[in-house]
Amino acid sequence: MTVASQGPRPLLLGLLLCVLNPSVSHAEKLLIIPVDGSHWLSMVGVIQQLQKRGHEMVVIAPEASIQIKEASFFSLKRYPVPFQREELQDSFAELGFQTFKNDSFLQHVIKTYKKVQKDSAMILSGCSHLLHNKEFMASLVESNFDAVLADPFLPCGPIVAEYLALPSVYFLTALPCSLDSKATQSPKPPSYVPRAMLSVSDHMTFLHRVENMLLALLENFMCNVVYSPYATLASEVLQRDVTLQDLLSSASVWLLKSDFVKDYPRPIMPNMVFIGGINCLHTKPISQEFEAYVNASGEHGIVVFSLGSMVSEIPEKKAMEIADALGRIPQTVLWRYTGSPPSNLAKNTKLVKWLPQNDLLGHPKTRAFITHSGSHGIYEGICNGVPMVMLPLFGDQMDNAKRMETRGAGVTLNVLEMTSDDLANALNTVINDKSYKENIMRLSRLHKDRPIEPLDLAVFWVEFVMRHKGAPHLRPAAHDLTWYQYHSLDVIGFLLAIVLGAAFIAFKCCAFGCRKCFGKKGSVKKAHKSKSH
Amino acid sequence: MTVASQGPRPLLLGLLLCVLNPSVSHAEKLLIIPVDGSHWLSMVGVIQQLQKRGHEMVVIAPEASIQIKEASFFSLKRYPVPFQREELQDSFAELGFQTFKNDSFLQHVIKTYKKVQKDSAMILSGCSHLLHNKEFMASLVESNFDAVLADPFLPCGPIVAEYLALPSVYFLTALPCSLDSKATQSPKPPSYVPRAMLSVSDHMTFLHRVENMLLALLENFMCNVVYSPYATLASEVLQRDVTLQDLLSSASVWLLKSDFVKDYPRPIMPNMVFIGGINCLHTKPISQEFEAYVNASGEHGIVVFSLGSMVSEIPEKKAMEIADALGRIPQTVLWRYTGSPPSNLAKNTKLVKWLPQNDLLGHPKTRAFITHSGSHGIYEGICNGVPMVMLPLFGDQMDNAKRMETRGAGVTLNVLEMTSDDLANALNTVINDKSYKENIMRLSRLHKDRPIEPLDLAVFWVEFVMRHKGAPHLRPAAHDLTWYQYHSLDVIGFLLAIVLGAAFIAFKCCAFGCRKCFGKKGSVKKAHKSKSH
Repeated sequence: MTVASQGPRPLLLGLLLCVLNPSVSHAEKLLIIPVDGSHWLSMVGVIQQLQKRGHEMVVIAPEASIQIKEASFFSLKRYPVPFQREELQDSFAELGFQTFKNDSFLQHVIKTYKKVQKDSAMILSGCSHLLHNKEFMASLVESNFDAVLADPFLPCGPIVAEYLALPSVYFLTALPCSLDSKATQSPKPPSYVPRAMLSVSDHMTFLHRVENMLLALLENFMCNVVYSPYATLASEVLQRDVTLQDLLSSASVWLLKSDFVKDYPRPIMPNMVFIGGINCLHTKPISQEFEAYVNASGEHGIVVFSLGSMVSEIPEKKAMEIADALGRIPQTVLWRYTGSPPSNLAKNTKLVKWLPQNDLLGHPKTRAFITHSGSHGIYEGICNGVPMVMLPLFGDQMDNAKRMETRGAGVTLNVLEMTSDDLANALNTVINDKSYKENIMRLSRLHKDRPIEPLDLAVFWVEFVMRHKGAPHLRPAAHDLTWYQYHSLDVIGFLLAIVLGAAFIAFKCCAFGCRKCFGKKGSVKKAHKSKSH
Repeated sequence: MTVASQGPRPLLLGLLLCVLNPSVSHAEKLLIIPVDGSHWLSMVGVIQQLQKRGHEMVVIAPEASIQIKEASFFSLKRYPVPFQREELQDSFAELGFQTFKNDSFLQHVIKTYKKVQKDSAMILSGCSHLLHNKEFMASLVESNFDAVLADPFLPCGPIVAEYLALPSVYFLTALPCSLDSKATQSPKPPSYVPRAMLSVSDHMTFLHRVENMLLALLENFMCNVVYSPYATLASEVLQRDVTLQDLLSSASVWLLKSDFVKDYPRPIMPNMVFIGGINCLHTKPISQEFEAYVNASGEHGIVVFSLGSMVSEIPEKKAMEIADALGRIPQTVLWRYTGSPPSNLAKNTKLVKWLPQNDLLGHPKTRAFITHSGSHGIYEGICNGVPMVMLPLFGDQMDNAKRMETRGAGVTLNVLEMTSDDLANALNTVINDKSYKENIMRLSRLHKDRPIEPLDLAVFWVEFVMRHKGAPHLRPAAHDLTWYQYHSLDVIGFLLAIVLGAAFIAFKCCAFGCRKCFGKKGSVKKAHKSKSH
């Protein structure tokens, strides 16, 4: 034990902070504009804590939502949208199904593009309905909020914040196509900051760097299908020309569910606050049902298996392959699965409709975690120090898996191509090769050793923005430059012009001087020569 | 009052932290390698706090030091150096005298260069003596330290840390010539991050941007006279080729006495921790002597005047000009001055050999602060919300003054050119124009509103590095790239070669195709034509 390896110290401080400031007399009013799905789940803790500290929390959400539901610690205002909850549910489910189709690369790209186009048109229509709902928007204006807490993954929140002329705090993991870096003016050198989806580490080969550079160039256009309609909508509603970057760059503070135990160190900006692991702060004792499973597992312990909130069933053939592999390990496997049980399910494998993932991972008998490597799951694995077998499906999951793999904390498998043997071997490796446990424990210690808990940090910065009506002192002057000014192209051009101009004049002067000095002599000589002939 | 404008909250937490962890059983051992002068003064608080938390603190310093003295909370090991304390004192004093000489710009540059050359040769000789002192270095090796806390302003500490193969934490305000940015791989776009000594804001005109770009190019060479001998010394001692950047980039964490209330927001790196204001955390009640001055000042209150620890007397003519101006304001002026009193000193002006600057600035009757705008003084002004009249003398003082001026918190005067009227007017302006007080109070509120006190943060990160034997997870991969790889020049060259190659082949193919298609026809036509003639 070293002097101050006081894991619980910040926690204790956090608790003391609550005791000392249980609620305060002059409450402030926060408007929360979340994004549905797993994005919402990690935001709930912050809202609850802010309400405990005496602030008034108002959440606005479409009438058709999946995860966003009423709770005692905020008031929920729903606005009508031109789609149904079922359409949204189908869209989520389809994402899971599509992942398991053995399409060719081209087919996959075309299908994904079409799906993204369709889904984002649906979500955009919801945003447009909100912004054009005069009565609803007027009620927001009248509510006199102090600030907005928004998830900018879908930039409806940022438009509402601009419309209400309120300072905003963004809450997110990251934005696709480096939109977050552009909006914060945070440099992202393609030589060592891998772009999303490339699934490489920060130590790239030459060819990876070439790929990364091409991706960095392409990402300027890749997200247009989803994001540019929001710029058009914002320009219409705000009655001035607004680019997506203008819109997103108005955030006072960016709360990023990331840290440098999971992600690679890179340049950041002073208004970026890292709250990675906010979702796995506390584990609770598990229920009797799960305790019974764990106790029955004997010395071998358990393996937790979930593909996240969006994928709860998979094609039968794949399910049988997986069931076969799970049957071959001595551990008890708790598998979150809502489909019909595979016929070859072994005795050691228990299917459950839902499982308390973070609490189970925190149990000392948990030996491994089979995960789709969504960022929440990865942080729960890190927090609890559980080695992982990662089956990334879509989005940032491939990158998350790569990050854990390069740190020796897990093994990644391609869920489509893997065989039963691959999965069984991977599980045996992460459970029996001690290096995996050692590496994830090292990451866990680093991750949890911080001067202030991520939840307290998030609450602090939301309150900071409410107290000071924004954080303009953290806004870099880069926002006020054009792209060519930012890169000093005008200055470089000017200096080059001076250097070339000076060189040209010097050359002309020399040439003139030479002509004067040697030219005459030459002609004299010539004249002399011709005379002498 | 807003919900959570709890200025004292972090302070309270800091105190609780001390109470909860007064000392710990398994102490760690820290080697501290400071830089003499004002640099040392702000480090003392961190050392004291670390000792309180149970760690063993060993400070090494040259036998000839000015500010570094014995104290109960660390053990001081002195090493012999080939210069005397008096030489060092003369050198410091000369810096002050030189500032007040009315030299031409060229004279000033030449004198400064010569002085820097002479002083840095002296300091370097001290470092060389330390590193070649086999007995002393062996005693350091045997001491089995856990980490090094060093001020890298003079990079002797970083060499010792490398020699002992120990993780290090740097403690500094900034390094000249952007050496800190280079060593941390933190981008510093010249379009909006002003270089040292330019004294411009982050919103630059085109010509300022040109100047800044030229300075950014020049700074690659400007500091060579001071710093390159350390690279040579390090290469010799470590018996491998070491550049200054290699040496400095080995730091695990950079504790920077800066924040974005004083400095302009710019890209930063994850291992840069901002502890600006660490020197002005607590004000104590002032002594009876000073209390008497303050009480006698009546409704007009007092003005605090100090040109810092290095300049305590100035030429008589300038002193008389200043005394004249001070006599014209209704406030009582407390002037830290060790020279002979100016003959025209007014009754309201009290000369003192020393003053408790931070405590006086914290007194509610303090109306203004006349300062040389060293970074400690500036932070004391910000902490205590006192508008400033700034008389910058050298180093980063011009930049500090500019930063406060652009924020409307003070007025800058050129100490050589200013008249009595200028100083009297400036004082009247910052005292009577309410905007100055409002602006400095706004800065003060922003500066003091932080989730954790800078002292606790500094202590946390030193302990973090001791606990984890460094912080390699915060080290960007950029350190492992050459400069052309970092800027992707090889990748750009490769892609350009492909594009140009493809264009060349396409052009050749077209040309060949055209010749085949039209060339024959042309010749057929020609042949046909010539036949018909």
